[in-house]
Amino acid sequence: MSKLDRALNEIDDNLQTSIAKLFDLIAIPSISSEASGARGIAEAAAWLQNELTEIGFTAEIITTQGHPVVLAKSTQNPRGDGLRLLFYGHYDVQPVAPLEDWSHDPFTPRVIEEDGVHRFYGRGASDSKSQLWSFIEALRAWKAAYDSFPAEIVIMLEGEEETGSPSLPDFIERYRDALQCDVAFICDSDMWSPTQPAITTQLKGLVHEKITIKTPNADLHSGHYGAVAANPIRILSTILSAIHDAHGRVTLDGFYDGVQDISQGQRQQWRLIADGAISEGEVSLLGGIIEAGYSPVEAMWGRPTVDINGISGGNQGPGERSVLPGTASARLSFRLVADQNPEAVRESFRKFVTARIPDGCRVEFEGHGGSNAVRLLENNPFLKAAARGLEAEWQEPAVLKGTGGAIPLVGQLSQGLGLDCVVIGFILSSDAIHAPDEHYDVERLRKGTRSWVRIFEEVTKEGHPTD
Amino acid sequence: MSKLDRALNEIDDNLQTSIAKLFDLIAIPSISSEASGARGIAEAAAWLQNELTEIGFTAEIITTQGHPVVLAKSTQNPRGDGLRLLFYGHYDVQPVAPLEDWSHDPFTPRVIEEDGVHRFYGRGASDSKSQLWSFIEALRAWKAAYDSFPAEIVIMLEGEEETGSPSLPDFIERYRDALQCDVAFICDSDMWSPTQPAITTQLKGLVHEKITIKTPNADLHSGHYGAVAANPIRILSTILSAIHDAHGRVTLDGFYDGVQDISQGQRQQWRLIADGAISEGEVSLLGGIIEAGYSPVEAMWGRPTVDINGISGGNQGPGERSVLPGTASARLSFRLVADQNPEAVRESFRKFVTARIPDGCRVEFEGHGGSNAVRLLENNPFLKAAARGLEAEWQEPAVLKGTGGAIPLVGQLSQGLGLDCVVIGFILSSDAIHAPDEHYDVERLRKGTRSWVRIFEEVTKEGHPTD
Repeated sequence: MSKLDRALNEIDDNLQTSIAKLFDLIAIPSISSEASGARGIAEAAAWLQNELTEIGFTAEIITTQGHPVVLAKSTQNPRGDGLRLLFYGHYDVQPVAPLEDWSHDPFTPRVIEEDGVHRFYGRGASDSKSQLWSFIEALRAWKAAYDSFPAEIVIMLEGEEETGSPSLPDFIERYRDALQCDVAFICDSDMWSPTQPAITTQLKGLVHEKITIKTPNADLHSGHYGAVAANPIRILSTILSAIHDAHGRVTLDGFYDGVQDISQGQRQQWRLIADGAISEGEVSLLGGIIEAGYSPVEAMWGRPTVDINGISGGNQGPGERSVLPGTASARLSFRLVADQNPEAVRESFRKFVTARIPDGCRVEFEGHGGSNAVRLLENNPFLKAAARGLEAEWQEPAVLKGTGGAIPLVGQLSQGLGLDCVVIGFILSSDAIHAPDEHYDVERLRKGTRSWVRIFEEVTKEGHPTD
Repeated sequence: MSKLDRALNEIDDNLQTSIAKLFDLIAIPSISSEASGARGIAEAAAWLQNELTEIGFTAEIITTQGHPVVLAKSTQNPRGDGLRLLFYGHYDVQPVAPLEDWSHDPFTPRVIEEDGVHRFYGRGASDSKSQLWSFIEALRAWKAAYDSFPAEIVIMLEGEEETGSPSLPDFIERYRDALQCDVAFICDSDMWSPTQPAITTQLKGLVHEKITIKTPNADLHSGHYGAVAANPIRILSTILSAIHDAHGRVTLDGFYDGVQDISQGQRQQWRLIADGAISEGEVSLLGGIIEAGYSPVEAMWGRPTVDINGISGGNQGPGERSVLPGTASARLSFRLVADQNPEAVRESFRKFVTARIPDGCRVEFEGHGGSNAVRLLENNPFLKAAARGLEAEWQEPAVLKGTGGAIPLVGQLSQGLGLDCVVIGFILSSDAIHAPDEHYDVERLRKGTRSWVRIFEEVTKEGHPTD
């Protein structure tokens, strides 16, 4: 039996033990956005440090301004060629509210057979504890079979991904030497379908803006002054409805500056793979306004967009109150593609809004985020090696896909540190991540873990790119 | 000394006692919209029942589906001609939040001299405990001077005016016989200025609508689907921004049906009295959109209008969340003028919205209210008598004014029971009603009470209209 087969068998044979350990990790309520989650965060970090140490890593808990990073390193390089691989995952989870919508306790996972699928429910079951567990267990199995790790390894496990990773830039700056690797594997993304793996090669940039319209008056009786005094909700509605034209195009000045249209080759590729992709999920596109001239997948992956994420003002109920409010606000997000400048988009939006504020009224802006889009090179040798590994396990080619989502980390590693990033994951849109009854299944955990072993095999076969 | 002078002197001489009693009433936190206010409501009703009984009325506390009505009657008719007068006031108050914005405890009134004015601060100080107290004290003083009430008297004190009077229609129907009077005096409105009294003769009708836009999906990740799936906030903004055209006219089909333009005579009258009226207050009209062709006062009193009173949807903060919400909602109110049909306006609005809901999305409507505008006859003999009484006290003619506000009670009494209504009050826009530091002043209480004695004098001079 080859060492590779021994590593793969090791995963299958130890599956029950591996699941039991994963369940211990899922049972820890490491909710990063709630003050009450701090204890769970600390407990999960210590649990991971312990596991990684047991496998043979030197693992530290690095404190940050926010939640800690677990940083682990292998001490020796089994190959002597200096090949160095970085793995990223996050151990924090979303809140569970509303708890009454869960059919299963979010922190008491157990295997349940449903229609022949062995599922387990829990917060973090899919996003992202099973993800990080897949590469940790693959490294354990590899070491059991080969008596060494496949290369020099660095593992970075973050504890505040679900709160927007506020401490990440500072951490990356402080540990830039420790993080220098030949390639970074980011494990926190989707498969293409339950049977077909995927690598995400295009990630959008992200700008958040909150606008608050203020009129010259505090709350007034709307019966008395509604006909004559400024209404901030009316002003806000007018502005929001002017952001898109009738063709779904964004009307902000210069919004499309630098945006390269989707190439014919890219369109062709997406058309082939994405046929019916969205309607397969449980998402309806009815009533949506897609930019004219683009398919849904093209709009999601290849075109910059503006979303309104929230709005509030005046009487929020339950009863009637004849109020003419003095303020109203909205939150927007801008999803950018390569070559768009986040700060230029923000400026253009602020000018657009300011020009539409009537005399005597004013607007306050509150900006967050500001990350560039990332387009990963698809002919990167590590990416190709990973694609071969995924195909070997799943017996279907890995789709090179885009996403409308942003992972600021990827931009920081690829553009900040010059690292090649390969974004892989085994999440499905039906896993109910961020929602009640989040779940995952045993077979996906098994095949995901095996996928990493096959990727190690292909990556080490590839050898050091500077050889 | 005439009996009239004795009654007026009685008010001046007993002012300190009267204020002390009023302060006892203001000290009772009779907040109708909060569950914790129920005890204050019961206490205030009992307090008023006790006061009215002491003056010589037969006073009952009538339970309703909501808060109780205090209903008091005089047993004998001193004139023998059957003249019967109804007085209306309300003893419930608005909530006090935010308490930290008050410079004075809202339930511990005391007299404070500020720039020569003897003010008292408290929730309900102006709206409306001083108002109802003015006619109760006037009746007490009249009885002290004349040994009888000016006519057969019915007093109705409501406990849920600040929550939109939900039990009022049922109450009026049950007590229609008891409420039949020659004229109803409604004491819950404004003066024209600190020195000039007013009678409100035009009240707008009112329709409330809440709309909730629902897309085919529950909350989605806006990064993934923002570019393609329906956004209910965008749909809502587009609808709200289409309700008015560039000239401030309402675009709903048939909205202006039956609306008579403001007559030249009315315009002339309002122009004379209303010059600078709005800018005198602390309300800025900057940024407001007034229907083209109308002055602010004309728009407020004489034109039908639509207001957006509240809006909500998606992420309300504080942090960023990349949500594409599944629902968004807004609350609107329609202020109607005479001859507009509330139900027709509601229907037209619902059609307008429904026509703008994209495929696959839907809208839910929740309607409240639905009162007609009321135009009270200005040549009514009781109204003229009241105007003479007010002028005698204030030495300035009473302005016959409109209001953008609605008092559904007035429509129910005038149209439902066929009663003549005279709407009088001594509130000023600077009293901060519904706001922190609501206040009133001793001199206005004194002259308001004296005004009612002078109105009784004029009304009884007028005699029974069917004589």
